[in-house]
Amino acid sequence: MEWKISETGRPAPGDIERRGNKLLISNGYIGYRGTLEEFNRDQKTATIVSGLYDRVAHLWREPVNLPNGGFVQIGYAGELLHVLTSKVIDHSQSLDLQHAVHERQTTFETSDGTRITIRSRRFASLARRNLLCMEFSVSADRACEIDICTGIEGNVWDINGPHLTALAAREQKGILSVSAVTHENAIQIAVSEAVVLPSGRNRVYGQGAQLSAASAFREFRVALVKDGFTFHKIVAHAFGLDCEDPLATSRQLCRQAAGVDFETLLAEHAALWRQRWENCDIQIEGDPAAQQALRFSMYHLLAIVPAHTARASIPARGMSGQMYKGAIFWDTEIFMLPFFTHAFPRLARNLLLYRYHTLDGARRKAREYGYRGAFYAWESQDSGDDACTLFNVTDVFTHRPIRTYFRDKQVHISADIAYAFWQYFTLTGDASIWIEGGAEVIFECARFYLAYIYYNPDRRRYEILDVTGPDEYHERVHNNAFTNRMVAHTFEVCLKVAALLRQHSRGFYDGLMEALCFESDLAAIAQIAPRVFQPDSAVPGTVIPQFDGYFTLENVSLPTLLGRKLHPTEYFGGGSGLATTTQIIKQADVVLMLSLFSERYPTETKSANWEYYESRTEHGSSLSTCSYALIAAQLGKVDWAYQYFMKTATIDLAGEAKQYVGELYIGGTHPAGNGGAWMSAVFGLCGIHCVDLCIAINPHLPAHWSKVTLPIICQGQMLRITLTHEAVTVLPVVPLEAQLSVSVEGSVHPLDPTAETTFPYHAWQGAENGLENACRAEIASTGFDRVHGEPCES
Amino acid sequence: MEWKISETGRPAPGDIERRGNKLLISNGYIGYRGTLEEFNRDQKTATIVSGLYDRVAHLWREPVNLPNGGFVQIGYAGELLHVLTSKVIDHSQSLDLQHAVHERQTTFETSDGTRITIRSRRFASLARRNLLCMEFSVSADRACEIDICTGIEGNVWDINGPHLTALAAREQKGILSVSAVTHENAIQIAVSEAVVLPSGRNRVYGQGAQLSAASAFREFRVALVKDGFTFHKIVAHAFGLDCEDPLATSRQLCRQAAGVDFETLLAEHAALWRQRWENCDIQIEGDPAAQQALRFSMYHLLAIVPAHTARASIPARGMSGQMYKGAIFWDTEIFMLPFFTHAFPRLARNLLLYRYHTLDGARRKAREYGYRGAFYAWESQDSGDDACTLFNVTDVFTHRPIRTYFRDKQVHISADIAYAFWQYFTLTGDASIWIEGGAEVIFECARFYLAYIYYNPDRRRYEILDVTGPDEYHERVHNNAFTNRMVAHTFEVCLKVAALLRQHSRGFYDGLMEALCFESDLAAIAQIAPRVFQPDSAVPGTVIPQFDGYFTLENVSLPTLLGRKLHPTEYFGGGSGLATTTQIIKQADVVLMLSLFSERYPTETKSANWEYYESRTEHGSSLSTCSYALIAAQLGKVDWAYQYFMKTATIDLAGEAKQYVGELYIGGTHPAGNGGAWMSAVFGLCGIHCVDLCIAINPHLPAHWSKVTLPIICQGQMLRITLTHEAVTVLPVVPLEAQLSVSVEGSVHPLDPTAETTFPYHAWQGAENGLENACRAEIASTGFDRVHGEPCES
Repeated sequence: MEWKISETGRPAPGDIERRGNKLLISNGYIGYRGTLEEFNRDQKTATIVSGLYDRVAHLWREPVNLPNGGFVQIGYAGELLHVLTSKVIDHSQSLDLQHAVHERQTTFETSDGTRITIRSRRFASLARRNLLCMEFSVSADRACEIDICTGIEGNVWDINGPHLTALAAREQKGILSVSAVTHENAIQIAVSEAVVLPSGRNRVYGQGAQLSAASAFREFRVALVKDGFTFHKIVAHAFGLDCEDPLATSRQLCRQAAGVDFETLLAEHAALWRQRWENCDIQIEGDPAAQQALRFSMYHLLAIVPAHTARASIPARGMSGQMYKGAIFWDTEIFMLPFFTHAFPRLARNLLLYRYHTLDGARRKAREYGYRGAFYAWESQDSGDDACTLFNVTDVFTHRPIRTYFRDKQVHISADIAYAFWQYFTLTGDASIWIEGGAEVIFECARFYLAYIYYNPDRRRYEILDVTGPDEYHERVHNNAFTNRMVAHTFEVCLKVAALLRQHSRGFYDGLMEALCFESDLAAIAQIAPRVFQPDSAVPGTVIPQFDGYFTLENVSLPTLLGRKLHPTEYFGGGSGLATTTQIIKQADVVLMLSLFSERYPTETKSANWEYYESRTEHGSSLSTCSYALIAAQLGKVDWAYQYFMKTATIDLAGEAKQYVGELYIGGTHPAGNGGAWMSAVFGLCGIHCVDLCIAINPHLPAHWSKVTLPIICQGQMLRITLTHEAVTVLPVVPLEAQLSVSVEGSVHPLDPTAETTFPYHAWQGAENGLENACRAEIASTGFDRVHGEPCES
Repeated sequence: MEWKISETGRPAPGDIERRGNKLLISNGYIGYRGTLEEFNRDQKTATIVSGLYDRVAHLWREPVNLPNGGFVQIGYAGELLHVLTSKVIDHSQSLDLQHAVHERQTTFETSDGTRITIRSRRFASLARRNLLCMEFSVSADRACEIDICTGIEGNVWDINGPHLTALAAREQKGILSVSAVTHENAIQIAVSEAVVLPSGRNRVYGQGAQLSAASAFREFRVALVKDGFTFHKIVAHAFGLDCEDPLATSRQLCRQAAGVDFETLLAEHAALWRQRWENCDIQIEGDPAAQQALRFSMYHLLAIVPAHTARASIPARGMSGQMYKGAIFWDTEIFMLPFFTHAFPRLARNLLLYRYHTLDGARRKAREYGYRGAFYAWESQDSGDDACTLFNVTDVFTHRPIRTYFRDKQVHISADIAYAFWQYFTLTGDASIWIEGGAEVIFECARFYLAYIYYNPDRRRYEILDVTGPDEYHERVHNNAFTNRMVAHTFEVCLKVAALLRQHSRGFYDGLMEALCFESDLAAIAQIAPRVFQPDSAVPGTVIPQFDGYFTLENVSLPTLLGRKLHPTEYFGGGSGLATTTQIIKQADVVLMLSLFSERYPTETKSANWEYYESRTEHGSSLSTCSYALIAAQLGKVDWAYQYFMKTATIDLAGEAKQYVGELYIGGTHPAGNGGAWMSAVFGLCGIHCVDLCIAINPHLPAHWSKVTLPIICQGQMLRITLTHEAVTVLPVVPLEAQLSVSVEGSVHPLDPTAETTFPYHAWQGAENGLENACRAEIASTGFDRVHGEPCES
C-alpha cells in the first residue's frame, strides 16, 4: 500500500475525473491522465505537453491536449467491451508510485457468458521523454476471437478549444500518425503509434489502418489461446517547438523504441525513478496512511516537474489537463519549490530560471499597467505574458462574468518569485543563479515595487495600496500585511544581491547596473526599504490585521456564512461575494506570512494570529492548510499540525477539493497541496529548517510516528536524518565538503564529515521560538563561490 | 399657467406619489406633501419637520413624519367620500407657485345621485412657521346633511419607523392634540388642531372629539344650505428641539392663529412669498413651458430652504418625505447654492453655516477612518455624523445588501463644501463668513486631504487614490479628475483664506491657527498644493480620463448596456453592476468639473469632453443634466443646452425620475435638479457669470425666447438684467454702492450706479471661451471688509 495507489470497482461518474487526476502518469514533458484505454473526451482523456499553449478567438489560452495515442478498444463478437457500459466482473486501476507505472485490470463478462480479462501497464518514459509506452494483454476463460482496435484518437477533450487544425491521419510502414497545427501560432504537432505484436501462438488477422480526418486506428482480430495475447504500444509525441519535423521525429522515435524490448524500456524508466526516490523518499514508521499520502504527494511533484528544461515550470493543476489555463502561479515558488530545493536543487534552479526566461513578459505586464520593472503574470504560460483574464468567474445568479482582480492586483507575485530565488540561494549557496538571470529578476521585481509604492506624507511611511493578498476573497485592499512584508523583503533581497555582486562579481555587477539603468533606483530602494509600513505590532501576541480595516468587517462565523449560501457553487469573493464584507478569508494570509518569515515573529504573535485566523479561514484554496500545519507545529499543536498535514497530503488521494467555482471547472491535481504536504511533514512535524550552514531540528512528531527517516540537501551536502521520539541522528550520505552543524533544542553541534552523529533530545512539548535563530548567520558569511555537489538527475 | 401647476382627474396609482411630490407645500420648517385630505399612510401622506431625525434599532435614521393634522374626511349618509373609491365627477388639484398655496376641488356623486363638491386651500405659513392653515368647503347640488371628520391622524407612513412612541391624543378647550416622543432621543413632539367654524346659516351638530391612542378626530354633522359650508383648520407643529413644552406651544400657536381671520393669515403668508419672487423671478417671453418649469423649480427651492436657521440645510429629496434618509448631500452646495447665492445671499449663508455647525460630525468621521481634519458626511443630518450606510442598495437577484462606497470613498464632499464657501465669498464679498466658521471649515477640509493624499515617488506627484467621484457607478477609482481638481482647489482656497485672514484679521487668524494647531499643516499644504496630479492634458481638445484606467474599460454604447439588463431596477453600480466594468457613467463627472472650473479649460477641451462623455452618460442622477446644459451653452450648442435645461427643469413636473434603485424607494422631489434648472437658465442660456466686481454676459438664448428679464445680486448689489437677441440691459435696482462693470462679448463697461445701461450685441454664435476671464481679477483686490446690502428676507 505504501508504494501503491489502487482504485477498485467500476468507476461511478464522479470517480472518472477523480481517478483521472489521481492516477496521472507524467515525465514532466508529457502528462497522461489516469483514464482507461477505451475512454474518450467524455471521460476527460488528456495528453498534455509541457509548455505548449494555444488560444482560440477570445477564449482562454490553455494547454493543447494532443491526440490520444493511448486508445485501445476491445471487441468480442460485435460487442465493445467498455468499463462503463459492459458487464464488469472485476475492475482495478492502480499506480505504482515507485516506478511511475499505471496498471489496469478488468474482467468483463460478455452476453454469452465469456469472461474476458484485459490488463495494461503504461508509463511516460523518464528516459525518453516523448514516449508513452504501454503493454496491453487480453485473455479469456475460453478460446475465442477478440477484435482489437488501437491507435490515436484525435477527437479530444478541450475546455476552450478546438486547438488543433489541419488534422491529418497517416500510416507509414506500420506506424500510425496524426499530425496537426495549433490554432494560434501554427505550431506543428504529431503523435505516432507503433504496435509491437508478439511472435507466438496467437493468430492475428487483418491488421490494417483506418484513417479518418482526425484519428488513426488499426484493427485486428486475435485468436485467443490459453495464455492470452499481449502486445505493446509505443506512442511518440513531438511538436514544433522542440524539433523541425514533428511528424518525422515522432515516427522515428516510435520506430526506435519499437526495436527495444518493453521490459528494457520499463527498466531504464524505473531506474531513473528509483534514483529520484533515493534523493527524497521519507520513511514514516507507524503510520501507513501518512506514509502513502506523503509518497503520493512527492510522486506527483516529481511526475510533473519539467526536468528537461528551464523554460517551463509547473502549472497549478500540474499536467492533469487544461484547467486554470495550464498556467504557472505563485504556487510553484512558494509551495512546491522548497521540496525541490531540499531534494533536487538543479530542478529548483530550472524552475527559477523559467522566471528569468519569462522576465520580458513580466516587463510587458508592468508597462501595460503603467509601471516600471517586472510585474509577473498571475497566470504565466510560455511567454510570461499574463493569461489571467479580468473576468475569471461566472456569477451563478446572473450567469454574467464577475470582474476579479487576480491579474491586476495580486502584485505579491513578483515578491514571491524574489523570495523563492533568495530561499534557493541561502539553502544551496549557489551564487551562479544571480549571474545567470536571478539578479536581473530580483532587480526588476524590486523596481516594480518602487514604481508601485506610495508615500503617505501624513504618516511618514511607504504603503502598498490597492492589492489583493493571498486571500482572494478580499480584493483591492490596502497594506495587506503579507504583501507589505513581501515587498520589504524584495527590497532587502535586492540590496543584498547588489551588495554580493558588487563585492564578488564587480564586472558583471557594473554591466548589469548599466544595462538596467538601475543605479538611481537602487539608491531609492535603499532609502525606502526600511520605511515600508508593516502592520505588525511591537507587542507580542497582537493579532495582525490582514489589511487596513480588516477588523471593521463583519465578524461572522464560518458556519453562519456558509449558511447564507443560496447556491452550492456561488463565488464567495468578487464585488458581491458573501465573504467580501466579512472577516472570513479564503486561505492563509497573515499565517502564511508568519510561516514564510517565521524567525521574525515571536511565539505569542504566531499563537494569537493562528487562533484568530484559523477559525476564520474557509480553506477554499489548496494552498491554505499547510501554513496552518506549519505554524501549528511550531506552537506545539501537534494534533492540529498532523490534521492539516493529512488534509493537504490527501487532497488528490481523497479527491475532495472544489471542482467548481461559480460555473468554472477547476478540477485537476493540486501540486501546491503536494508541496504543502512535504513542507508540513519536513518543516512542520519533523521541525527541520536549514539555515545557512546549520540544520535546526526541533521535531514535533505525532505520537504514533515511531521513526522518520529522510534525506535532505543543505548547501549541496546530502544528509540522511533519522528522528525518533528520543533522538535525532544525522548521517552525511557522502563526505561533507563544507562544515555543517546541527542545532537540536537550541544547542549547536558540528557534524562529523563522514560519520553518523546522534543527538538525544527530550520530547519537546512547548512552542518553538527562536531556535532557528540560534544558528542563523548572515548569508554573506557563507561565502559566495562555494562549489556544490549536484546529486540530482541531469 | 405660468404661476399655476394643475393636475386633473382622479389620480391613478402612479399619480398619487407623483402629485404628492410635485404639489408639496413647505415653509422650510414643515413640509406637507401634495396629497389629499382624505388620504392616509397608504397614499404617502407626510408632514416632515426640518432637522428632526430618528432611528429605530439598526434601521436607517430618517426624518420623523409627524401625525397628520391635515386630515379631513367627508361622509354622506354613511358613505365616505374618497377620491380613490367614490364616484368622482370632477377632480383637480393645483399649486399656486406665487403664493405657495395648494388648492383642491372635487365633485363626488353619491349613490343616491347627490353631487357634493369639496374645495380646500392650504399653505404652510411662511409668517408662522409652525402652522399649516387650511380652508375647507363643502357644497352640494341639493340640501343635505354632511358628516365631517377632521383632526390628526397619528398612524403615518414610515419607511424605517415607527419613530414615535408614547403617542397620546388629547382635547383641551376645543383644541385637539397628539403628542409623542421620538424613539431614539426621546424628543417630544406635538401636533395640535383648531377648527374655526363659520357663524352662519348652517346647523352644526354633535361636535365632539374622538381620541384613540395615536389620533384625535372631531366629527360633526352639517346641514348644507345653498352656499355650502366652509370651515378653517389651523394645525400647529412643535417639537422639543425648538421649545420647552411642545404640547403647550402647539396649543398656544393654534389658539393664537385661530383668532386671526384666515384671509389675514393667507395675506401675510402671500406677501412674504411675493417678496421672495421680487428677488428671483425670471420672466421668459416666448416660452410658457420653460417659464412654468423654471418658476416651478425656484418654487421648490424656496419652499424647502430652512430660512429660519443655520443649523439645518436642504435634504436631497427636500421636504417630500423620508427618502434618502432626509439627508443633506453635496447636492446643496454644488447644485442648489448658486441660486441662493445670486438671489438670497443670507439664505446661502445659512446653508453654508450648517456645515460649520456640523463640523464636529465631519471631524468624527475623519477620525473614524483614521484621518485628521473634516471628512464630511455623505449623508448629513442634524449632527453631521454620517447617516450613510455601507450597504445602500439591495441586489434584485439575491435580495442581499450590496456593499456601496458612497460613505467611505466619496471624499469629494469636503471639497464640494470648500468650493461652495469660496463661491459664496467671491460672489458676495462677505468676508464675515470666514470669521464665523468658514475658515475653520476650510482648514479642516484641507487638513483632511492632507491626511488622505499620497505621494507617488516614481512619478513625483501627489495623488488622490481610492475614491468614488460623482459617477457612482465606478467606485474606488484612482485619480478621479473631478476629485483631484476639487482637492487642489481646496488647498488653494485654504491658502487664500489663510492669506486673507493673516492680512485683515490677524488676531483671529493667530487664534484659529493656534486652536487648530494648523501652522505646520498649512506649510505642508502650500508645498503640496501645486503638485496635486491633474489628469488634464496640456493639449487642448484632449479627452480627460475620468480616472486612472477609464479608457481601458469596455467601450459599450448606452443602448447596448441597457439591453443587457435582466431586471428593470437592477443596480448598475457596485461590485457587480452592469456599468461598473464599462465606460458608461451615471452622471456628469469630468463635464461637471469643466463647468465648475470653466475658466481653466479651453473650448476645444470642453467640446471634446462633452462629446465623449455625453453619449456615455446614463443620467441616472438628477444632478447630471445641468452640467451638460451648461457646457453645451458655452459651446454654442443652444439646442442641446435647452433640451438639458428643460429636462432638469421638468424633473418633478413630469415626475419621470427613477423611483427605485434595486429594491430601494428613492422617489420624492429633486431640489438639486431644481437648482440645476436655475443654473442652466442663468449661467447657461443667459450666459451670466458674476466674477468679482464684473458681470460677464454672453447670452445663448434659444431662438423662441424673445426676451428674458431677471434680477441678480452681485457683491451685494441687486441688478435687473434684460436680455433680448439684440441687446443686454442692466439696471441697478438700488443705487450701486460698489463700482460694478459688465462684460459683453469681452468688452468691459462700467455700470452707471443708478441708471439703466444697454449694451447691443450681435447674436453670438460660436463657442464661449475666455470671455469670463476678461473681467476676472484676483479676489483679494475686491477688498475684504466691504459692507453689503442684504435685500433678502431676514
